Amino acid sequence: MGLFQHLPSRISICEVSPRDGLQNEALTLPTHAKVRLIEALADSGLAYIEMSSFVSPRWVPQLADAADLARSLPRREGVVYAALCPNRTGLRRAIESKVDVVAVFLSVSETHNRRNVNKGVDETLRVLEEVVQEAVAKGLRARAYISTVWGCPFEGSTDVGRTLELTQALLRAGAYEISLGDTVGVATPKQVQEVLDRLLAGVDAGRLALHFHDTRGTALANVLVGLEMGITTFDASVAGLGGCPYAPGAAGNLATEDLVYALQGMGIETGVDLDKLWEAGKVAEAVVGRPLPGKVHRAGVRSLRRESGRPFARSGERTKLGRA
Amino acid sequence: MGLFQHLPSRISICEVSPRDGLQNEALTLPTHAKVRLIEALADSGLAYIEMSSFVSPRWVPQLADAADLARSLPRREGVVYAALCPNRTGLRRAIESKVDVVAVFLSVSETHNRRNVNKGVDETLRVLEEVVQEAVAKGLRARAYISTVWGCPFEGSTDVGRTLELTQALLRAGAYEISLGDTVGVATPKQVQEVLDRLLAGVDAGRLALHFHDTRGTALANVLVGLEMGITTFDASVAGLGGCPYAPGAAGNLATEDLVYALQGMGIETGVDLDKLWEAGKVAEAVVGRPLPGKVHRAGVRSLRRESGRPFARSGERTKLGRA
Repeated sequence: MGLFQHLPSRISICEVSPRDGLQNEALTLPTHAKVRLIEALADSGLAYIEMSSFVSPRWVPQLADAADLARSLPRREGVVYAALCPNRTGLRRAIESKVDVVAVFLSVSETHNRRNVNKGVDETLRVLEEVVQEAVAKGLRARAYISTVWGCPFEGSTDVGRTLELTQALLRAGAYEISLGDTVGVATPKQVQEVLDRLLAGVDAGRLALHFHDTRGTALANVLVGLEMGITTFDASVAGLGGCPYAPGAAGNLATEDLVYALQGMGIETGVDLDKLWEAGKVAEAVVGRPLPGKVHRAGVRSLRRESGRPFARSGERTKLGRA
Repeated sequence: MGLFQHLPSRISICEVSPRDGLQNEALTLPTHAKVRLIEALADSGLAYIEMSSFVSPRWVPQLADAADLARSLPRREGVVYAALCPNRTGLRRAIESKVDVVAVFLSVSETHNRRNVNKGVDETLRVLEEVVQEAVAKGLRARAYISTVWGCPFEGSTDVGRTLELTQALLRAGAYEISLGDTVGVATPKQVQEVLDRLLAGVDAGRLALHFHDTRGTALANVLVGLEMGITTFDASVAGLGGCPYAPGAAGNLATEDLVYALQGMGIETGVDLDKLWEAGKVAEAVVGRPLPGKVHRAGVRSLRRESGRPFARSGERTKLGRA
């Protein structure tokens, strides 16, 4: 079988819970609670944390304290702190706040983009090209999200050729990586393959990241396809933080613990300590004050090890048991 | 890329919620509620339903009404009704109840098997060989579960060579299919590949089914590996019914809706109407009286279609959109 001939030995995780997770919460958390969450995430070994968003506080009041948060947060060697920026005003605030990475965003769906930022896709692209160029000129790195790559709630399916154009334009402008988003969580594995087949004809796999929402349970299966096709960066959110607080149980981003559990079991290094990450998930649950949906988060990571006194096999180290 | 070169055009689903799901519920449901659930499942197009278990009512009081249920349940052309049987006493009751398939079970882990049926694996195998032979002689079909194939809560990892021996023995006895169970939901995709690599060296893929619990979120990714390796039968439970009712949110079996959604999106026929299956999930939630964890169950199948007026792309039918 051709499966798993090309697995990487190591992948990178972009932890987006403080931004993509918290912007969807009904409650606005105090800054100190966000610091506590982000510190717990960094303690687990996560090396990229999207801490907040410099969008207008009118759009996303939950993240209105981005500058205060950036000031309060102790920086750590080896941890990259990123913030979302929609425009040059956001970029100026991000630069003042000394973030390492600015993340810009647009949607491949015209309708979704207009509802999100009140501008057409082409106009948004021109703004983002300037933001990316200026960020790079100021010594920051720039990452770009393209959303609704696998479908839009308003337009249905979206155009992969258009996604490729936007990807190439944002890379040309100076973005180091494009994160392809299944914003509403509709992608299935074969569709992931189809989109990546088209994109990888024009873009190096090392320039792409995948950002799956687990709304319909396909996120980890979709990651598997990405891995097999050479993608080595994945976005995730601790305990599956995100989704809509008005639909209890509705899923947000792929849960970081579920991603790390699966990859560790496949012998792929993530740099993350799963026990500590699980503790960070408990912090996330405490600060948002509602149960979070991540599977490993719910099941726990220690109970089985404690009961058996022996770990489950990892790939390549399966233990033989006698028959007693 | 070698991925998805070998996808089947159609797969079979064994719906196990009335047995594997309900045996884990704290409440014992009235027989009429089970009939209502099973009828809703059959309405959706599911063609194999494991309705109950002829184990001792002392072991599993939730399923003590198996004979009454089997009597009350209208049979349908094209739907196979199965029941779990641990021994010849169970088989006699199953035969009297006119089920189509008896499902026998043992564990590859000695400790798990003893805790489950109070006998060693070898002794259990001898009993099951007799049950299978007698069932076949009486005109029924026999299916066999092997549990803890990817790990045991008491012994940790388990022996794939032993799983192969048990698989071959049960097939020799006359079972038409062996369902390999990740009973505690610990398997990751590469481990699924490793186990199937070993088993497929000695057993035809058409004789194997996969039974994943989604405790750590890996079930659908594991199905993907099975599909790619030629497996075409998967066990699932509507809305993810199952798991431990004392750990709210803990996952049970792979949710049937999530399986069907992913496969349909990949162009694989399941014979199931997802809208009707979603309705069956709502019935399941109503009769057990607690929220169920399936992702598609929580997200719904109709909302996005209604909002956009257009479906999302299925594999091979991606629509191009203009730029507006």
